[in-house]
Amino acid sequence: MTTALCPGSFDPPTLGHVDVLRRALHIFDKVVVGVVANPSKAPLFTLEERAALVDELFDGQIEVVGFDGLLVELASELGATALVKGLRESADWEYEIGMAHMNRHLTGIETVFLPTAAEYRFVSSSLVKEVWRLGGDVAALVPEPVMAALASKQEP
Amino acid sequence: MTTALCPGSFDPPTLGHVDVLRRALHIFDKVVVGVVANPSKAPLFTLEERAALVDELFDGQIEVVGFDGLLVELASELGATALVKGLRESADWEYEIGMAHMNRHLTGIETVFLPTAAEYRFVSSSLVKEVWRLGGDVAALVPEPVMAALASKQEP
Amino acid sequence: MTTALCPGSFDPPTLGHVDVLRRALHIFDKVVVGVVANPSKAPLFTLEERAALVDELFDGQIEVVGFDGLLVELASELGATALVKGLRESADWEYEIGMAHMNRHLTGIETVFLPTAAEYRFVSSSLVKEVWRLGGDVAALVPEPVMAALASKQEP
Amino acid sequence: MTTALCPGSFDPPTLGHVDVLRRALHIFDKVVVGVVANPSKAPLFTLEERAALVDELFDGQIEVVGFDGLLVELASELGATALVKGLRESADWEYEIGMAHMNRHLTGIETVFLPTAAEYRFVSSSLVKEVWRLGGDVAALVPEPVMAALASKQEP
Amino acid sequence: MTTALCPGSFDPPTLGHVDVLRRALHIFDKVVVGVVANPSKAPLFTLEERAALVDELFDGQIEVVGFDGLLVELASELGATALVKGLRESADWEYEIGMAHMNRHLTGIETVFLPTAAEYRFVSSSLVKEVWRLGGDVAALVPEPVMAALASKQEP
Amino acid sequence: MTTALCPGSFDPPTLGHVDVLRRALHIFDKVVVGVVANPSKAPLFTLEERAALVDELFDGQIEVVGFDGLLVELASELGATALVKGLRESADWEYEIGMAHMNRHLTGIETVFLPTAAEYRFVSSSLVKEVWRLGGDVAALVPEPVMAALASKQEP
Repeated sequence: MTTALCPGSFDPPTLGHVDVLRRALHIFDKVVVGVVANPSKAPLFTLEERAALVDELFDGQIEVVGFDGLLVELASELGATALVKGLRESADWEYEIGMAHMNRHLTGIETVFLPTAAEYRFVSSSLVKEVWRLGGDVAALVPEPVMAALASKQEP
Repeated sequence: MTTALCPGSFDPPTLGHVDVLRRALHIFDKVVVGVVANPSKAPLFTLEERAALVDELFDGQIEVVGFDGLLVELASELGATALVKGLRESADWEYEIGMAHMNRHLTGIETVFLPTAAEYRFVSSSLVKEVWRLGGDVAALVPEPVMAALASKQEP
Repeated sequence: MTTALCPGSFDPPTLGHVDVLRRALHIFDKVVVGVVANPSKAPLFTLEERAALVDELFDGQIEVVGFDGLLVELASELGATALVKGLRESADWEYEIGMAHMNRHLTGIETVFLPTAAEYRFVSSSLVKEVWRLGGDVAALVPEPVMAALASKQEP
Repeated sequence: MTTALCPGSFDPPTLGHVDVLRRALHIFDKVVVGVVANPSKAPLFTLEERAALVDELFDGQIEVVGFDGLLVELASELGATALVKGLRESADWEYEIGMAHMNRHLTGIETVFLPTAAEYRFVSSSLVKEVWRLGGDVAALVPEPVMAALASKQEP
Repeated sequence: MTTALCPGSFDPPTLGHVDVLRRALHIFDKVVVGVVANPSKAPLFTLEERAALVDELFDGQIEVVGFDGLLVELASELGATALVKGLRESADWEYEIGMAHMNRHLTGIETVFLPTAAEYRFVSSSLVKEVWRLGGDVAALVPEPVMAALASKQEP
Repeated sequence: MTTALCPGSFDPPTLGHVDVLRRALHIFDKVVVGVVANPSKAPLFTLEERAALVDELFDGQIEVVGFDGLLVELASELGATALVKGLRESADWEYEIGMAHMNRHLTGIETVFLPTAAEYRFVSSSLVKEVWRLGGDVAALVPEPVMAALASKQEP
């Protein structure tokens, strides 16, 4: 049985995330989302909120865990076959490839890159939040439950 | 009538900015500079100072407005035909193209990229400030009024 | 009056080309397509066929000329305000920026880059031809008249 | 059951190819190598030789097929879950991502990118052949059977 | 006599740094390491600790100085022939090339780029610290004295 | 004594080449230009013409040799300390870094990259020839002896 571990902040999950996770489900027997507990920037949503949103979007098809330590240790605990990362063109390719080499160095774990669908290439969580904070309409960029969650936050 | 909206922090305007704005004036009937009121890093010059510097450099040929919200809303208010961005090689191309797609998604506005003149490719406001703060000579990189404005600041 | 000169091989025109040309029409008073007579690779369509296809697609809104010499000379003859190039992510950015600097060096002409719509970023004439030659379906990637023109060619 | 289709010219297979294929075997239940019959450049080894070399290297663990048409059709015939490509830093990332989007457009097939091991990042078949043709020692860059196959060719 | 000035934070020195400095010693008569006193991020090691580590690693072969001002001024004081920077693939190439042009503009000093050894391409000080803080094993990525120095710090 | 080997086609030498070679002379005790006898594309100038042009430009300060085999073998024969390559932004960075790693793998030789002066970043031999063949003025891009040599060729 193959298991994919998909790490990220998911603050909040976007349609780009949903696209990559759907595709990971085609390739791996089991997909686990690892939600970074404390991202380097203060998150808009709590760990619990972010985990619950991912969970709701995939309705049990995907296991969701929060984590706070070394990604490769979580991967070992889960017996993960590979790490899976979506690769937007705007992603920091160099950063991701460096992390992939480091992670392989640490425990031998593979990283698998899935190119994001062309129509979501410009959709990152941080850009979505930036637009939303300024009052822009992001309804076409995030799933419905995320729109509801955004509406419940004070900011705009 | 075509109108270009050129957004930026202009903290301070450099000869690279001047070059791009001069070229935008060749292409568009009207050029408006949109000065970001609150850039993500604390600016050296106030919004008023930055706007005044751009205004002085173009002597009425260019309209200057400060803004604090969504760039595409300002573009709509102004009836702008397109956003115009200079593209230094050292610019974060991926970031700019992501913003361009996002802005087109939001209101359909085009983004036009003008390559910065080769001799100014390494001239960014932040690098100019970094060199100036350490006492380096930036007189060949910024217009004269900016040199005068820098001299009036305490730092070096 | 501003005039854009849009150079290319257009062998054949794709929906990506159509998208960029439509957008150039928003920005410039007049758009001229310059079809390269003798591209470095032997073209599938003759110069006449390629020019006729572009002409048909825009129904008189766009002037189409073939050319065989220096692009900047054509630009001077036409009194063009700027060269316009679509910029797919997959485009050879470095090549285009080098050409832009060279052309500016030769006659001072500006080059304006328009980012291709996200959904057409992978659509180049050469990839369309490669897929079509192997029997793949390219109907969603080129305008209808181009599909008809492809059908009239022997290859697949 | 998941099946990976790994396309390429394999002219000849390098240690970089071997590394990527070994890793594909960890992730997928079955790995098929699709050897391009007629690469754009005239190959050094015949299709039969290239296929036999890949076969020998993996000793039955990997299925090897030659193909001449559209990659996505081969993928459909094989019922492949995904295409797998190694991604050297020196690879034409833009080209690969364009192909991935095109292939997804044509049949919905995913492309999975595996980063090549750091120590093989500079090892491409074409660079290996270039060095070998000039008499350089490539023994540390290709598997033993490939060294033997190279020795049997006339060139150096 | 030629002198290379190699600037950096060295917080801490990695095997990638050691590799680049060894190679600089082959090319230049004298190599000076310039340790940035106050990097933009708060360093883990003090300036004295960082300088002492570099010094210990090269055992007198390399001169080590801390500095706080303009790099090109230090270069002038030292009579340096050139600045030397290692270039990992993951390095911010655009940033480095911009700095090189700026420094050449300021005093005419050259910048020489040495590509980092392939096996260290993913080894940056900041990634090493990130892994170490989370309890990962970095012994294969830094020299022995740095492992000892890390052990004496409280964090993990 | 340090020796730099600067390989290239020099078909013809440009002001960009001259700039890089002048800077190599500041860093190395001796500079040797290695002119590729048979570049992959048929050259405009013969090996003898290209070597004579480089020789004339540096008036004995630089040794010029033609070569036909493995670059690293020439480097070994010359006892070269390092290979030196100019790095235009438009250069194929990935290609150059791959070659640098391969050459280091073959004999341990270093490659040193010097960034081309900003004003010559768009000046390549091939673009100069393309413009010249179409009748464009390249006098500001190549040294005077090259202009004379171009004039003696039939093409435009």
